[in-house]
Amino acid sequence: MTVRAKMRRVAVVGAGITKYGKRTDASLKELAFEAVKKSLMDCGLEISDIDASVISVANQYLAQQTQPGAIINSYIGMCPKPSFTTVDACGSGSAAIRAAWMSIASGLHDVVLVVGAEKMTEIDTPQAIEYMGFAGDPLWELRPTGITDAGLYAMFANAHMEKYGTTQEQLALVAVKNHKYAAMNPISHLKKEITVEDVMKSKMVSYPLKLFDCSPISDGAAALILACEERAKKITEKPVYFLGLGAATDTVTIFEREDLTGLMATREAAKRAYAMAGIGPSDIDVADVHDCFTIAEIMAYEDLGFCKKGEGGKFIEEKRSYLEGDKPVNVDGGLKAKGHPLGATGVGMVYEIVKQLRGEAGPRQVKGAKIGLTHNVSRDGTHVFVQILGVDF
Amino acid sequence: MTVRAKMRRVAVVGAGITKYGKRTDASLKELAFEAVKKSLMDCGLEISDIDASVISVANQYLAQQTQPGAIINSYIGMCPKPSFTTVDACGSGSAAIRAAWMSIASGLHDVVLVVGAEKMTEIDTPQAIEYMGFAGDPLWELRPTGITDAGLYAMFANAHMEKYGTTQEQLALVAVKNHKYAAMNPISHLKKEITVEDVMKSKMVSYPLKLFDCSPISDGAAALILACEERAKKITEKPVYFLGLGAATDTVTIFEREDLTGLMATREAAKRAYAMAGIGPSDIDVADVHDCFTIAEIMAYEDLGFCKKGEGGKFIEEKRSYLEGDKPVNVDGGLKAKGHPLGATGVGMVYEIVKQLRGEAGPRQVKGAKIGLTHNVSRDGTHVFVQILGVDF
Repeated sequence: MTVRAKMRRVAVVGAGITKYGKRTDASLKELAFEAVKKSLMDCGLEISDIDASVISVANQYLAQQTQPGAIINSYIGMCPKPSFTTVDACGSGSAAIRAAWMSIASGLHDVVLVVGAEKMTEIDTPQAIEYMGFAGDPLWELRPTGITDAGLYAMFANAHMEKYGTTQEQLALVAVKNHKYAAMNPISHLKKEITVEDVMKSKMVSYPLKLFDCSPISDGAAALILACEERAKKITEKPVYFLGLGAATDTVTIFEREDLTGLMATREAAKRAYAMAGIGPSDIDVADVHDCFTIAEIMAYEDLGFCKKGEGGKFIEEKRSYLEGDKPVNVDGGLKAKGHPLGATGVGMVYEIVKQLRGEAGPRQVKGAKIGLTHNVSRDGTHVFVQILGVDF
Repeated sequence: MTVRAKMRRVAVVGAGITKYGKRTDASLKELAFEAVKKSLMDCGLEISDIDASVISVANQYLAQQTQPGAIINSYIGMCPKPSFTTVDACGSGSAAIRAAWMSIASGLHDVVLVVGAEKMTEIDTPQAIEYMGFAGDPLWELRPTGITDAGLYAMFANAHMEKYGTTQEQLALVAVKNHKYAAMNPISHLKKEITVEDVMKSKMVSYPLKLFDCSPISDGAAALILACEERAKKITEKPVYFLGLGAATDTVTIFEREDLTGLMATREAAKRAYAMAGIGPSDIDVADVHDCFTIAEIMAYEDLGFCKKGEGGKFIEEKRSYLEGDKPVNVDGGLKAKGHPLGATGVGMVYEIVKQLRGEAGPRQVKGAKIGLTHNVSRDGTHVFVQILGVDF
């Protein structure tokens, strides 16, 4: 990676998000429209002020179409402006943000809309899980083993428990924390506070992961408006700048990995993002990380450098990732309880960080937060995106 | 669109392509590997010299997986470098090129690999056509009408014939030309020269389009290596620079269009690309345009400004788009006869223009070509990408 001294700065100037959950009231494009409208209202722009869009919808099987991004772009009134769609399973939203950032940093566009959306509940749950599983390698993993995402993360959990003594109760604590904050977040899918006992008693999905260790299947959309610095300052008094962007990749198949106690691509993406921002993990005031399963958040603490390798279980036990802790993580409820509409997830993470850095997170506000981080993962760490945002005000 | 005076220049330094056609010998990722290897050999780089990749695979149903880009990125040896995947139906490859261009122009990366690939013949033809049709709007067009791509372009053809007197024989002449050049191109899917009579006698698919008016269903892959100017000059003596990039969008549903005799998004994308390059249609020495059906090439002549609206039929009749004409178009055989592996198509177009501008196109060489254009369309003109390339040497 080469970091240029004179890179054009890019800021988020507007952000919108829909209620996540079972949205029988809205189709995929209607969810997208709802988020876009909110992002425009957030900064006082009209759709005609936007130069281009980048759309993220992760799964064509769930969408039952192969150009859902084009349908959304048309429905929100963006024609004839340029648009394209990014697809990287659960990391699609961050890929779209990365592309939109590049389109502005390059000087090609000044104001770009990012839309992430997914409609997952139109089909029944087993079918949705099968379609999500299609992110795996059909020849070498998916068809021979029939493995699902829960099965993959169960292997991570078992490896972590075996090597570091992490306990099922520590995994459960992640769910307890994230449900607590989801209950305080108006857009959350799951709004019920739970206890460790609730998690431990919930139905086993794939040992040691139980139902309450897993994120739900959610509909939802989120939208961001990005602008070059010059325009950003005219649009808003509170531009939230991208300080660093890191991305990295790993094998799709888990059997090719050397280690199952963490995600190499997270460590590599974080290294790149920290280097570009010129900061380290200790500088992060608030983070939204990819907790598709509880073990994923524990691995993220470690791989992002919030604690030492193997100490993620202790990290949640000591409540360090709570709102009052030294490193608040997923105080929006996370994928675990806010919800995980695949294509929207990465965009919704930046939405939360923008609200936090603007001081608009209400009862969930991390006091004085100036620098935030998002961490978005496709499947089992195949693609990982880390983004660091910060404010001057 | 804002064009910056100090945009970082980006060049194609390496290009590779596989044989297009029914490739029972290779899987999707193996096709991609073949193209990537050729692109690296073309410029003497190793995969370790590449900073990041952008992958294009258009159709998850054809790929039978939802992260084919990740599987390709891993298989070609790119891990842990950054990567993401673009998806815009038949325009996916150009979206990937656009994203890769932005990643370099922004200063984020210096050397980026673009890979486009599609494996379409593993399933039978009716099923493949159904899956391609999924690019339509399922609610408002696809399911109520069952329309296929041939049906859409048949409507364009009928409108053009009705309004401008374009004849079926003129449509056939496009196929005759493109088969002629495909027969001279070693990587082509269809290598048989044909006559107007052959086209007219071929099986009716959707009036007035007959079998020989349609592009085939092909497997194939193409790869490009893009670099910033400073690196490009060190890598090759023949860098091929991007002079202009234009993109535009239209509705997915055809019933919302005002006019069916051309593609609004082509005109808009071309306008943007010409403006950025600071040139006009008369400056183009050679072009690869999106001739998924013969009528599409005739509309492209007009919408790209190579001739006046309604004169596309006469344009081919006068052989102006032949190698010896004043505006050679698709002298590689086009989608029509070289083949149309969806995700590879836009990348393969730039491969051809690079060969032409370097003077390496052999018997199909357009003499003295210095400026070339590619024109890549998703479905019925929903997304259109126009790219203009040029050389200094």
